[in-house]
Amino acid sequence: MAVTTKATIASFRGKLLKCAHNASTTNCEMAFNLYLPPQATTNSLHKVPLLIYLAGLTCTGDNGAEKGFFQHAASQKGIAVLYPDTSPRGLKIPGEDDSYDFGSGAGFYVDATKDPWSKGYKMYSYITSELPQTVFSAFEQVDGSRVSIFGHSMGGHGALTIFLKNPHKYKSVSAFAPIANPSECDWGKKAFGGYFGEENKTKWAEHDATELVKAWDGEANPLDVLIDVGIADNFYKQGQLLPENFEKAARGKGRVNVRWQDGYDHSYFTMATFADDHVNHAAKYLLG
Amino acid sequence: MAVTTKATIASFRGKLLKCAHNASTTNCEMAFNLYLPPQATTNSLHKVPLLIYLAGLTCTGDNGAEKGFFQHAASQKGIAVLYPDTSPRGLKIPGEDDSYDFGSGAGFYVDATKDPWSKGYKMYSYITSELPQTVFSAFEQVDGSRVSIFGHSMGGHGALTIFLKNPHKYKSVSAFAPIANPSECDWGKKAFGGYFGEENKTKWAEHDATELVKAWDGEANPLDVLIDVGIADNFYKQGQLLPENFEKAARGKGRVNVRWQDGYDHSYFTMATFADDHVNHAAKYLLG
Repeated sequence: MAVTTKATIASFRGKLLKCAHNASTTNCEMAFNLYLPPQATTNSLHKVPLLIYLAGLTCTGDNGAEKGFFQHAASQKGIAVLYPDTSPRGLKIPGEDDSYDFGSGAGFYVDATKDPWSKGYKMYSYITSELPQTVFSAFEQVDGSRVSIFGHSMGGHGALTIFLKNPHKYKSVSAFAPIANPSECDWGKKAFGGYFGEENKTKWAEHDATELVKAWDGEANPLDVLIDVGIADNFYKQGQLLPENFEKAARGKGRVNVRWQDGYDHSYFTMATFADDHVNHAAKYLLG
Repeated sequence: MAVTTKATIASFRGKLLKCAHNASTTNCEMAFNLYLPPQATTNSLHKVPLLIYLAGLTCTGDNGAEKGFFQHAASQKGIAVLYPDTSPRGLKIPGEDDSYDFGSGAGFYVDATKDPWSKGYKMYSYITSELPQTVFSAFEQVDGSRVSIFGHSMGGHGALTIFLKNPHKYKSVSAFAPIANPSECDWGKKAFGGYFGEENKTKWAEHDATELVKAWDGEANPLDVLIDVGIADNFYKQGQLLPENFEKAARGKGRVNVRWQDGYDHSYFTMATFADDHVNHAAKYLLG
């Protein structure tokens, strides 16, 4: 559970920590970034809530911290931001590094059940359990009782599914260009087929936001989900994201605010543009 | 003078253009980024002023556009931002790619007088003349009569020297961690020695902000320069920047606001943090 802080970088009046720890779920050393806003570093009695950002295919914890501009609003609101990696690294599983959309950098936030991936591709357990426990234990300034989650693309899939499966763990959820119905797109079929097997469709449904939201009790617990999708996003055009399927399945379950952003693509430029909105969406629930 | 726009990316309600053109001063194709704020793209009758960002060693025009966060305030204020490259590319001069601090990625915003560098290492002429003329001719929305300049590290040196040598061309100047007295630091000695020759100290002084500011007529034209320097900046600690020499030489010449930022380093995280301040400093003069 010990965390090594390899670098401390000043950012928006707070501190961005470059950390690593040996993770038992993923069976390897995992790197992550943790942004502590100025409110966390100047008064250790005042705990700050945590917003977890799940990144997309090919990313590490660095991309969002460098190009997402989430620190801008997180600093103003007093929210810590956790930037995990997207898969285990260096497990030496044959084929692990062959594709950008499977294996390294593509853990899909699931616990693989199929060999050899089940040996360490346990990103669901890592993100929902081991990593936050590690952070709360190493950083007393972070309040384990106030956590929100959001993400981009594969990380948008991760954020939506993890929130829908654990509504009591997270105060809010939002997503940029999420893979919102992975059972029905090429990326998701490849990932779920590889990590769960082609036949295990029950598992597929358990990690498909569109399937999960159908079972959501919107009367007891009305949703408030913010989703930004760029109309110029090539992966949206290719049918990899399918946010419209999620939107339809979520009807009557509360507020699912899918904002179709004219001209915007799949890049971090889109996230930087709407970063404040997503942090403020989380702040409503984390600080409300 | 023709500009090829290779990509258009939505960013902060405006457009980031990835462009290239064949430059005669540098004798090669040069890439640049141009951010057009929403005010420029929605009304072609309303011209927007231009802020030129000069990047540091090893950078291209991409780094600032991706990690500087300058589009945030530029979008609000209605200012275009031009992100040039830092040197010619691919001239095939022997040794061109051997060092991070000389040759490719290290043009130092001077016109080399020494062979073989004089064949294309003419970044001073490129930045002060060819590139802006190309931009004003290709993009009618950009107002050639309202231009400001700023930069980081080597680019801070570029911004300060280019402003001090051409006060009528630029409305304002600011810098992050500038190499403020290159004649007295290792980076500057290597660059000026290589591009001008060891003996040509007159040329050295013509491109040294600390030397130039001594001759500035602060009574006729009081300075208003914003400079941010991180106290945790390793290059500052190594004596590569020497902003204190510039500050001292500029005494009595107007306002030189050197802000010593506690805990901040030499990275784009520092720039992102204070990006709004620098764009707003330029906005005072570009829109005033």
